[in-house]
Amino acid sequence: MGERSANTFVPGLEGVVAAETRLSKVDGANGELIVAGFPVEELASRATFEEVVYLLWHDTLPDRRQLGEFKKELAELRQPPAACLDLLRAAAAERVPAMEALRMAAGAATLDLATDDDHRAALALVARMPVIVGAYQRLLEGEEPVEPESGMGYAEGYMYALTGEEPAAEKARALETYLNTVADHGMNASTFAARVIISTRSDVVSAVTGAVGALKGPLHGGAPGPALDVVFEIGEKARAEPYLREKIEAGERLMGFGHRVYKVRDPRADVLAAAAERLYKEAGDTGLYELALHVEQTAIKLLEEYKPGRNLQTNVEFYTALLLHGIGLPTELFTPTFTVGRTAGWTAHCLEQRDLDRIIRPQSAYTGPENRRWVPLEER
Amino acid sequence: MGERSANTFVPGLEGVVAAETRLSKVDGANGELIVAGFPVEELASRATFEEVVYLLWHDTLPDRRQLGEFKKELAELRQPPAACLDLLRAAAAERVPAMEALRMAAGAATLDLATDDDHRAALALVARMPVIVGAYQRLLEGEEPVEPESGMGYAEGYMYALTGEEPAAEKARALETYLNTVADHGMNASTFAARVIISTRSDVVSAVTGAVGALKGPLHGGAPGPALDVVFEIGEKARAEPYLREKIEAGERLMGFGHRVYKVRDPRADVLAAAAERLYKEAGDTGLYELALHVEQTAIKLLEEYKPGRNLQTNVEFYTALLLHGIGLPTELFTPTFTVGRTAGWTAHCLEQRDLDRIIRPQSAYTGPENRRWVPLEER
Repeated sequence: MGERSANTFVPGLEGVVAAETRLSKVDGANGELIVAGFPVEELASRATFEEVVYLLWHDTLPDRRQLGEFKKELAELRQPPAACLDLLRAAAAERVPAMEALRMAAGAATLDLATDDDHRAALALVARMPVIVGAYQRLLEGEEPVEPESGMGYAEGYMYALTGEEPAAEKARALETYLNTVADHGMNASTFAARVIISTRSDVVSAVTGAVGALKGPLHGGAPGPALDVVFEIGEKARAEPYLREKIEAGERLMGFGHRVYKVRDPRADVLAAAAERLYKEAGDTGLYELALHVEQTAIKLLEEYKPGRNLQTNVEFYTALLLHGIGLPTELFTPTFTVGRTAGWTAHCLEQRDLDRIIRPQSAYTGPENRRWVPLEER
Repeated sequence: MGERSANTFVPGLEGVVAAETRLSKVDGANGELIVAGFPVEELASRATFEEVVYLLWHDTLPDRRQLGEFKKELAELRQPPAACLDLLRAAAAERVPAMEALRMAAGAATLDLATDDDHRAALALVARMPVIVGAYQRLLEGEEPVEPESGMGYAEGYMYALTGEEPAAEKARALETYLNTVADHGMNASTFAARVIISTRSDVVSAVTGAVGALKGPLHGGAPGPALDVVFEIGEKARAEPYLREKIEAGERLMGFGHRVYKVRDPRADVLAAAAERLYKEAGDTGLYELALHVEQTAIKLLEEYKPGRNLQTNVEFYTALLLHGIGLPTELFTPTFTVGRTAGWTAHCLEQRDLDRIIRPQSAYTGPENRRWVPLEER
């Protein structure tokens, strides 16, 4: 990119580097995502989520003793305070959308703890976010929240909070791979909101609450529901091509394809496609997986035919939807589940920004008039 | 300022213009603040707070009918939902600091309303913020919150929420002048956080909740408590000079003097000084006011003597503290009261950013390693 004057308005701050970070690198031109030094495909399907959180916070994988201690700390902090659950109950009575309830609950999630201990607040948020999501879903369904089981791993604990039952190992593993895949992703809008908030020497809970609020918006990305809806609507392989041709010729956008950053294949899509293949094979019913694969290949072929050279590739939403559906999560839990995973990155960015200890405070350019004079109410 | 490459890291985004706005202009070099076209000194002591909110949202002062309708809408929305008050009750039981409780309550303040109506959410936040502050202060003191009186003006209603009594007219007017003075102030960190959050097409409540979280941090500015503490410690005019000399010679910063933006006198300080003079004179006890004036003049004189050419001037905190103390607000309510006033600007920036409908999403520069390889737990 070229040079520009420091005091020029940069719409959307596009191209402006607002932070240096050791947490993740998004290389859209080459289709690479590095998470704390690891290519995402090296890390996501092997690590537990606790290892990824530890890695992001401490820049090293934990040894056996460190991991045991870390899992114990997280497990002990899982139960949200009663006031937080009461708030979810009130939100469920009003049928508040899940992301809004999650933002409210995140803000009240550490009411029982002093938030001037950044590290402990971060631990509590990571520990409690899945319990809050599970509790709210149960309340919406007219069920009571379940008490967390301290002996379970993170992904298992999330599914237990939703269902009250211990999940099948392959489903917990698939969920864990998903959470690892979305744990951090450069300077997206929610992560940036978190860094701006904590840059005033505010606290981790304030920052993560703001981040949930930003993630909630439909321009943020990471809302994978619609991608799978297309697969369901198509229903059988033979219908894929005529259906997709009709969509493209009508000028509709195909959900699940193309990404504002990745110009080649999103590396997270590969990780999630492999995890989905394993999950559906282990479950012994690969019908939906094969249909999705066929829809994807047909879409890629048709996009190249209709929009040659644009190189529109499958994005993370497509396989996210397939994977989360295979795990048994309903569509309305896709964005909350993304939130659970991204809490790892948000808290890590908070701790990093906190160490930097510099306020993020850009300028604005005034476009209004300057010399208005007061007119009393009677004369208006 | 000079030219620089678009992809250079700009620490703190200093000097980067992140938004165009018609809402306010901060001219630090000339000591000017324009609020929606009006010099702050033209507007602050004349307008009601409702007029300033209307002006910020609609870019024009309301006529009699518009103002009547606007005040009615605000008054009808004053009462926060029960779940929001329950949350404050739980926070008070834990002795949560006021700004943290305010952030929690802001997030739950519109639980009874659909938040996809931006304008109504903004109205509800402006209407309820002072009621929430008042309710929390009362709960901390072991009192029950009072029901809002729909017939009162905004500033009166705030004081009624705190005390349960109708305030003296001169105190309500002084408070209103303060709220108007701090209603908006360019692209500070909390306003920027609000704009980043709503830029994803999230909602006004998410954005304002994030802004409260940012304002809570001590680097944000606007925490006026310590400036008055100095005046109280000095206690009498004769002690001012030796006390301040000792502070300056010990290398301590004098709270209430100097501002990162204003290089000459902060124009808000003049407005608040005049309001404080009126208030203390009307109350018939000008002792503290005169002492504060003497402390200020002595401090300015000594700062010029010890730090010649730095031109350190009285900032907004000094007279804020004097004014809010005169109104009868305890120190711990100074930042919450600032929050009530700034909610006008936050909501206005949200509505402005929403119309722009462009995501704010800068980049980050990765500083970590790139090719770490997985090591199984047993081998670490």
